[in-house]
Amino acid sequence: MEEIKRRVAEAAAEQVKDGMTVGLGTGSTAYWAIRKLGERVKEGLNVKAIATSSRSESLAVEFGIPLVTFAETDVLDVTIDGADEVDPALNLIKGGGGALLREKIVAAASRRFVVVVDDTKRVDRLGAFPLPVEVVTFGAEATKRALESLGCASRFRMADKCEYVTDNGNFILDCDFGLIREPEPLAQAINAIPGVVDNGLFANMAHVVMVGCGDGSIVVMERGE
Amino acid sequence: MEEIKRRVAEAAAEQVKDGMTVGLGTGSTAYWAIRKLGERVKEGLNVKAIATSSRSESLAVEFGIPLVTFAETDVLDVTIDGADEVDPALNLIKGGGGALLREKIVAAASRRFVVVVDDTKRVDRLGAFPLPVEVVTFGAEATKRALESLGCASRFRMADKCEYVTDNGNFILDCDFGLIREPEPLAQAINAIPGVVDNGLFANMAHVVMVGCGDGSIVVMERGE
Repeated sequence: MEEIKRRVAEAAAEQVKDGMTVGLGTGSTAYWAIRKLGERVKEGLNVKAIATSSRSESLAVEFGIPLVTFAETDVLDVTIDGADEVDPALNLIKGGGGALLREKIVAAASRRFVVVVDDTKRVDRLGAFPLPVEVVTFGAEATKRALESLGCASRFRMADKCEYVTDNGNFILDCDFGLIREPEPLAQAINAIPGVVDNGLFANMAHVVMVGCGDGSIVVMERGE
Repeated sequence: MEEIKRRVAEAAAEQVKDGMTVGLGTGSTAYWAIRKLGERVKEGLNVKAIATSSRSESLAVEFGIPLVTFAETDVLDVTIDGADEVDPALNLIKGGGGALLREKIVAAASRRFVVVVDDTKRVDRLGAFPLPVEVVTFGAEATKRALESLGCASRFRMADKCEYVTDNGNFILDCDFGLIREPEPLAQAINAIPGVVDNGLFANMAHVVMVGCGDGSIVVMERGE
């Protein structure tokens, strides 16, 4: 599995061109893309990057990739990130790694959003993976009840015996909505709830999904317009 | 003006009944409601409260009102809060005081949301008051650009020479959309932007607006169903 992730992530990192500003995803597949990009920087590639988590920021520093902030750059040329589920229309569930908010901000600011996954992440319909929803800590119990009124069972993500806290100081509620028929209206309804910061449904955001398969091949899914 | 605010806020605080759980708003009008409620507690009224800001929490402590958290209470019986603008349909703009997020969470968890204002806050259409939008600090410049693509001019709220930081650790963007024709779709479009935590449009949330007038009278606007 790790070898499949590595191969597809490196193939995406190979597409980065000199002079680009790159969004660095978070998670076990994005790790390989960051690592490969670092190798290319050592070979002379000139890029700047924005990381989607403190973990990926540390990796960028470790691998020698120069970092910038949104104060210094308007638009990213490309972002490479993983996903927990991908449907045939390239809608995604993300957030298993807890970094969905920054991942979404960076993806939304990118000209091209490239998703790298192994083929176990492909589904006909999203929702077998519980949807992560980032909520502010104040009133989190009330926000949980409001979310459940949309038709899910939810639980606070834990780290040891305490609630997991995101890089932004918020909690994550993992929400089981069952299979999701219409990702975009659900995402809107969730974000309209006071206390919700954002949710892990990435609808109509990915431009390309690169899928690493067990036979060593890579399937490229492009978004239809 | 202060006398008008005091009178209408006290009238709202007089309606709180024994045994209720009360949401405490934030701002110069809500101040008088909290103060009055404290007087009633000293006279023997038995209430519990949840505050919408650290400032109001301090006032509650100062005035002797017992505080609880959302971990201890499911639903609030009533919340009393101010507003920056009120339209004839009881839609509001809030957030001039910087506490819109907690105010919205508390209002949404309340059986009855009572808004207290002086009559300078009544408008035919919302939007002369710039709409406050709470955004996460990460990528705030990108979030600002995305907000402006909806058709507003915006600026970061400042405190001295730095960005104002909310109780939740976020920034506020004051957004001038001009007069707002349809509050609810605009609120949804704003909240769909990655990086936006919430916005100061309170559409279809207030049950009652009590308006203090210069002649000493109080006009009560009830929401039609």
